[in-house]
Amino acid sequence: MRAATIRDGEIVVAEHPDPVPGVGEVLVRVHAAGLNGADLLQKSGRYPAPPGHPQDIPGLEFAGEVVGRGPAAERFAEGARVTGITGGGGQGELLTVHERQITPAPDGLDWVQAGGFSEVFTTAHDAIVTQAGLRPGERLLIHGAAGGVGTAGVQLGHAIGAHVTASVRSRELHDGVAALGAHEVVFPDLLADRDHEVEPFDVVLDLVGAPNLAVNLRRLAIGGRIVVIGVGGGAKGEINLHALMSARGRIMASTLRARPLEEKAAAARRIEREVLPLVERGAITVPVAASYPLDDAAAAYDRFAAGGKLGKIVLDLG
Amino acid sequence: MRAATIRDGEIVVAEHPDPVPGVGEVLVRVHAAGLNGADLLQKSGRYPAPPGHPQDIPGLEFAGEVVGRGPAAERFAEGARVTGITGGGGQGELLTVHERQITPAPDGLDWVQAGGFSEVFTTAHDAIVTQAGLRPGERLLIHGAAGGVGTAGVQLGHAIGAHVTASVRSRELHDGVAALGAHEVVFPDLLADRDHEVEPFDVVLDLVGAPNLAVNLRRLAIGGRIVVIGVGGGAKGEINLHALMSARGRIMASTLRARPLEEKAAAARRIEREVLPLVERGAITVPVAASYPLDDAAAAYDRFAAGGKLGKIVLDLG
Repeated sequence: MRAATIRDGEIVVAEHPDPVPGVGEVLVRVHAAGLNGADLLQKSGRYPAPPGHPQDIPGLEFAGEVVGRGPAAERFAEGARVTGITGGGGQGELLTVHERQITPAPDGLDWVQAGGFSEVFTTAHDAIVTQAGLRPGERLLIHGAAGGVGTAGVQLGHAIGAHVTASVRSRELHDGVAALGAHEVVFPDLLADRDHEVEPFDVVLDLVGAPNLAVNLRRLAIGGRIVVIGVGGGAKGEINLHALMSARGRIMASTLRARPLEEKAAAARRIEREVLPLVERGAITVPVAASYPLDDAAAAYDRFAAGGKLGKIVLDLG
Repeated sequence: MRAATIRDGEIVVAEHPDPVPGVGEVLVRVHAAGLNGADLLQKSGRYPAPPGHPQDIPGLEFAGEVVGRGPAAERFAEGARVTGITGGGGQGELLTVHERQITPAPDGLDWVQAGGFSEVFTTAHDAIVTQAGLRPGERLLIHGAAGGVGTAGVQLGHAIGAHVTASVRSRELHDGVAALGAHEVVFPDLLADRDHEVEPFDVVLDLVGAPNLAVNLRRLAIGGRIVVIGVGGGAKGEINLHALMSARGRIMASTLRARPLEEKAAAARRIEREVLPLVERGAITVPVAASYPLDDAAAAYDRFAAGGKLGKIVLDLG
């Protein structure tokens, strides 16, 4: 099979042996696979795949068709349309994955959209709902709201009945984010401006890290929760624990990729129960900024790295 | 009535008008009242009492007898032995407090012990159980384990079936803390020593603040929770969010005093259900380092500030 492949820090397309499904696993013919920040880190050598996953094939999410089943795999018939997360190897024509870690592909998404669905919606749902426990009527702040996880978070927050404030750097993306359900779209500088009054936030979803910490703490409501799921802007910074105490607040930090099967399976069940119905009735969708055929994988990575896009960059494997 | 009173940063004993219970409140004849770190802060002008509480009478916990009831107060009969937390004013002969914020004084504690019970056990239980969700078999680290909240936390952790590691600076207090149920008592320096291998902790109870943050993060288990309920050692310090992400960890920070009645009442109900039975069957107790009559309140504060004690300093109001 062919796959996007990391060679000396670059993305090429290369041949690999077809994977063989193990106990409880299915073999998936991948139709589409989204790109994520972790793929860029892995490409540059800074985020190796967990053990048991191909080290040189990136890709944390995929959509495709079940074309084989390993021993004891019984949740999906051959031909079933599925989508899911994997610890790596999503961006190849074939993939093996444990059947409990994936979900049916929801009606209402085409292959490309389904390929960019699982990682970002699982990440956003786990952070906002499972961890931070967002409730209707709460105020949710999402940094980097135009990206993959950001657009998922905006839509989930809106569907839950929260008030969603989206922070977006590029002015040309503000209208698109508002159309996804953000009650207001602001520039990051506005939140940092001490003279600008903002009603405090109950939940903050942050992918930037240390540079946002002071603003997040200053803008936190009593009982507020900050969920850090990325440190693209830097990991180390000053924290004022007195401010966190005064807010009776929490900082939660998390990654999805390193979790054991049982936690990933539990997250997949929550997606089935709580998110797929929203997709199926059209309440949320997967905005795709651009898709690229597998042969243009390197161009897809360049586009992803350039930023300034609304939603996902997805490899279309046909 | 007479009360310990803050005058120009010093503790004196002064006359005050008798308080009158409002709707839902009881009037308590205080028999004993513990000292806490917040009293020292308030004495030095750095922690004013919340609105509705006397600003010049310190005291966050008390035990006494109900001697009057305001309109609609019906939980306790006159003569009932009660203990509880208050936003301030605990260290006077009379006190008014909402009846839902207090609990029966448990059998098995004398007045002095009961006077030093509520604030520290409510604080420790709220932090370790309600917030951090400590489970049997988990590893609990308690910094400053010889103090009031520390000795409460050690005993609660032991009673829950956790493995309790107590960090205590004074060697002469190690045996006393071990006798309360700590599986091991260590010096703070040992935890800070990078060459010393320690199995990581699921829950860390911290009253020191910023100086402990790096050690707490380095020693945190996957899914671990750090609960910060004091910043006596400093509030501002560097945090490594990448380390927190890798641990999929949480930093929770909290204070009890500023919470609204409904939250304090809910905490009191949890104490009734989960902690009073442990006291009544002798599984936990209140270690009292020293008690002082009201006239010696200033000496009690000096003793509290000096540290190096096992358990509580309590005012004995007779």
